[in-house]
Amino acid sequence: MKALVKISKILDGCCTDQKVTIRGWVYRKREGKRLIFLVIRDSTGFIQSTIKEASVYWNEAQKLTIESSLTLEGTAKEDRRAPGGFEIAAETINIIGLAENFPISKDKSEEFIRDIRHLWLRSRKMNLIMKVRADVLNATRQYFISQDYTEVSPPMFISAAVEGGSTLFGLKYFDKELYLTQSSQLYLEILIYSLENVYCIAPSFRAEKSRTIRHLTEYWHIESEWPFADMNDLMNFEEGLMTYICQTISEQCQKEFKELNVDIDKLKAVQTPFPRITYKDAIKQLKPKNSILTWGLDLGYEDEKVLAEDFGKPFFVYDYPAEIKAFYCKTYSDHPEVAMSVDMMVPKIGEISTGGAREDNKDILIQRMKNQGLKPEDYEWYLDLRRYGTVPHVGFGMGLERLLVWMLDLENIIDAIPFPRTTRRFYP
Amino acid sequence: MKALVKISKILDGCCTDQKVTIRGWVYRKREGKRLIFLVIRDSTGFIQSTIKEASVYWNEAQKLTIESSLTLEGTAKEDRRAPGGFEIAAETINIIGLAENFPISKDKSEEFIRDIRHLWLRSRKMNLIMKVRADVLNATRQYFISQDYTEVSPPMFISAAVEGGSTLFGLKYFDKELYLTQSSQLYLEILIYSLENVYCIAPSFRAEKSRTIRHLTEYWHIESEWPFADMNDLMNFEEGLMTYICQTISEQCQKEFKELNVDIDKLKAVQTPFPRITYKDAIKQLKPKNSILTWGLDLGYEDEKVLAEDFGKPFFVYDYPAEIKAFYCKTYSDHPEVAMSVDMMVPKIGEISTGGAREDNKDILIQRMKNQGLKPEDYEWYLDLRRYGTVPHVGFGMGLERLLVWMLDLENIIDAIPFPRTTRRFYP
Repeated sequence: MKALVKISKILDGCCTDQKVTIRGWVYRKREGKRLIFLVIRDSTGFIQSTIKEASVYWNEAQKLTIESSLTLEGTAKEDRRAPGGFEIAAETINIIGLAENFPISKDKSEEFIRDIRHLWLRSRKMNLIMKVRADVLNATRQYFISQDYTEVSPPMFISAAVEGGSTLFGLKYFDKELYLTQSSQLYLEILIYSLENVYCIAPSFRAEKSRTIRHLTEYWHIESEWPFADMNDLMNFEEGLMTYICQTISEQCQKEFKELNVDIDKLKAVQTPFPRITYKDAIKQLKPKNSILTWGLDLGYEDEKVLAEDFGKPFFVYDYPAEIKAFYCKTYSDHPEVAMSVDMMVPKIGEISTGGAREDNKDILIQRMKNQGLKPEDYEWYLDLRRYGTVPHVGFGMGLERLLVWMLDLENIIDAIPFPRTTRRFYP
Repeated sequence: MKALVKISKILDGCCTDQKVTIRGWVYRKREGKRLIFLVIRDSTGFIQSTIKEASVYWNEAQKLTIESSLTLEGTAKEDRRAPGGFEIAAETINIIGLAENFPISKDKSEEFIRDIRHLWLRSRKMNLIMKVRADVLNATRQYFISQDYTEVSPPMFISAAVEGGSTLFGLKYFDKELYLTQSSQLYLEILIYSLENVYCIAPSFRAEKSRTIRHLTEYWHIESEWPFADMNDLMNFEEGLMTYICQTISEQCQKEFKELNVDIDKLKAVQTPFPRITYKDAIKQLKPKNSILTWGLDLGYEDEKVLAEDFGKPFFVYDYPAEIKAFYCKTYSDHPEVAMSVDMMVPKIGEISTGGAREDNKDILIQRMKNQGLKPEDYEWYLDLRRYGTVPHVGFGMGLERLLVWMLDLENIIDAIPFPRTTRRFYP
C-alpha cells in the first residue's frame, strides 16, 4: 500500500501527480455512464475522486453507499473543476464498512438532526467547530501556564451550594444527599493558600430550567483564583487571556473560520486594553433604551446585548450593586453598597465571564451571609480560609461554550459542545 | 517596596546579599531572647528569616501566629545553618492576615487531617503532589497533541450505562432519571467518525462501595479512541504515552521528587518497548502463588501486584477471556473466546489502564450484548456507529490518580487528588 496521506495534505498540493492512498468515508456519490464521482472525507477535509468504468474496482465503486468507509488509492491531480482544486484518479478501492442507508440528507429538520447528534457530529460544520474548540482549550491552558498558574482538579460532588441552591442538581451518594458543582470557585480559593495562582477547566452543572440559546445544564468552566491581587490585576489578566486566545486562534484556525464562513477579523481586532465601564455608567448608557433600569436591578440579557453592540468587542462592566451579587463578593469599605464584581461581555451573547475580588474579612463575610439568608455554619471550611492567614484575592469563571458562541458566531450554544445537555436534550 | 521574589528563587541563589521582599505565610516560629526565627512559606518553598529585638518590627513579629499571611522585606544571605542554606535578615514586616490558632500540628491523627483537608492542602507534601499532578496533566496533553489527537469534551450526564449499571450514580434530571458517566469511551467512539484520533481528560464516576487504597468515587480519566488501528498500534501508543510522561516528569519534577523523598529513577527507567504478556501466560506465571487461578477468572488486585513485582516496571497483559470482558470488546474470529483487551499494569497498584479493540461488526456486537443479558435496543446509537461506515478501532482509559499513586509512591489514592471523594469522604 502507498503511504497514507491525509486529504488536507493533498489539497495543500503536497502530492500532485503522485500516487496516494486515502482513508475515510464516502460523503457524496454521483454515478455517470462511464464514470463514478465520489467525494471522500477524512478528519481533515474532502476530496473528489473518479473511477472509470474500465477499472476492475468499478463494481466496488457501484456498491458504495453514503458514509461507507474505505481506502482508496490513485493519482492526485490538480483539477480546477473539482471542489478544492484537486481530485484523485482512483485505481483501487477497498471497502472497509459498507454503510446502510444513511439517515441524514439535506431536507432533514433541525429537530431530527438533534435526535441523531451521534451521526450529525460527522458533518463538516461540527468537525470544524470541534477542532476550534480543542485549539481554544489548548490556547487557554498555554496562557495560564505562561503566567505561572497551576492546573488543579476541583470536585464535582459537593456538599454545600455555592450560590444558593435553586439551580443545583442533587443526587443520592450512598446514604447521603450531595450536589453537583455549579462553580469550583470556593475550592480554588482553598488551593491559593498552597499553590497561589491556580486554574481549572472542568464541567459545571446548572439545573437551569430556562430554555435559551445561552444555557446548558452541563458546561465547561474555565475558572481561576489567585492571591495578593485586586480588581485591576483581575481585569488585566482576563483581557490578557482573552487577547491571547483570540490572537492564537486567529492564526491557527484560519482554514476553519474560512470554511465555516465566519469573520476572523473580529478576533484579530481583540487587543488590550478592553473598555471598562462601571455598572453605574452602564445603566446610564442604557437609560434611553430601557427606562425602568435603575441602580439595584441586574442587567438582563437584552441590556447586555445592547451594551455589547455599542462596544462591538469584548469589554468589562464592573462595580455592581452588592445586593445583587453573591455573599463572597468583596465590597468597598467606603461604599459597602458596591461589590468589586466584574463581568466580561461580548457582542451577541452578553456576559461570558464573571469575577471579582473575594471578601477576605471573616466578620464582613459572615455579615454578608446573614444578609442573604445563608447560615455561616454551613460554610465553616470557607470561613477557615479567612481565619488562618487570609489574603486579598480575586478570581473569575468563564463559560467555554459561551466564548465559542461569540468566536464562531454560533446560532445556538448547543453547537459549541459535542453532546449538549439542556432541559430537553440528553441523548445520545 | 522592593521587587517581590519567590522563595525558590532566593534558594537558587538569585538574590544573595540583595534586598528582597517575600510574600507568604508563617510556617514556623521560634522566639529567642533577642531574636525571633520565622520560617515563611510561599507556593514555591520555605525560607528562614530572623528579626532582631532592636527592629521597629519586633512587636509585629511577636504578634505573628502560625499561618499568618505577611510581606517581609530584608537582605537575603547565604547561611549554612539555615534550612535550605539561605535566610533573610528581616527589616520590615507587614502582617496581612493574623491567623487564629492553627489546628494542624504534628501530633494530629490521620482522621483529623482528612477532616480538615482544606487546611491540610497547605502542607508541603500536598503542595508538591499537586504540582506534579499539574505537570503530568500537561505532559499527557502534550503527547496527545504531538501525535495529532484532538481533545474533546464528553458528557457527564448519560442516559445509558456503559458497563452494566451496578456502580452508576443516578440522579434526577428534571423529570427524568439520568446517570453520571463511568467512562467516556462510547462517546469518544462517536467522535472518531468525525475527528479520527480523539482524547479527553475528564471526570468519571463510580459508585464503588469497596473501600480500597485504589478506588475513588470521582476520578479523572484519561481516555482515547482512534480508528484504523489494532492491538499492536494500541500498545505502541500507550507505551509511547507512558514513556513520554515518565521522561518528562523525571526532568521537570526533580525538586519535587527529591523533597518528597521519592525515587525518580524508576521514571527514568521507563523505556519502550514494555513487556507484553498474554492473560494465558500470566495465569501460568501466577500458578505457583495462586493455584486456583484458571482460564476464565479475572485477575485480582493481589494477582496483579504479584505480576507487577515480577516485572518491576510498567507492562501489558492482553488477550483476556471474552466472558469477563465488556460486550464492546472485539474477539478473534478464529478464537471467539479471546477478547482483544489489554491492561497496563504497574508495581504497587496493578492495573492503571484498560483498553482494547472495539467490536466493529454490528451482528457480532448484538450477539455479545445478548450473551451478557443486555438489550441491543438500549444501544441504538452505539449500533449506528457500526451501521454507517464502521471501521476497526481501538482505545483505552487510564486513571490519572492511579498513575500518580505509582509515580509518587503514594500510600493512598486520596492524596493524588485535591478533594478526594470516597464512600465516606466528600467534605469539604
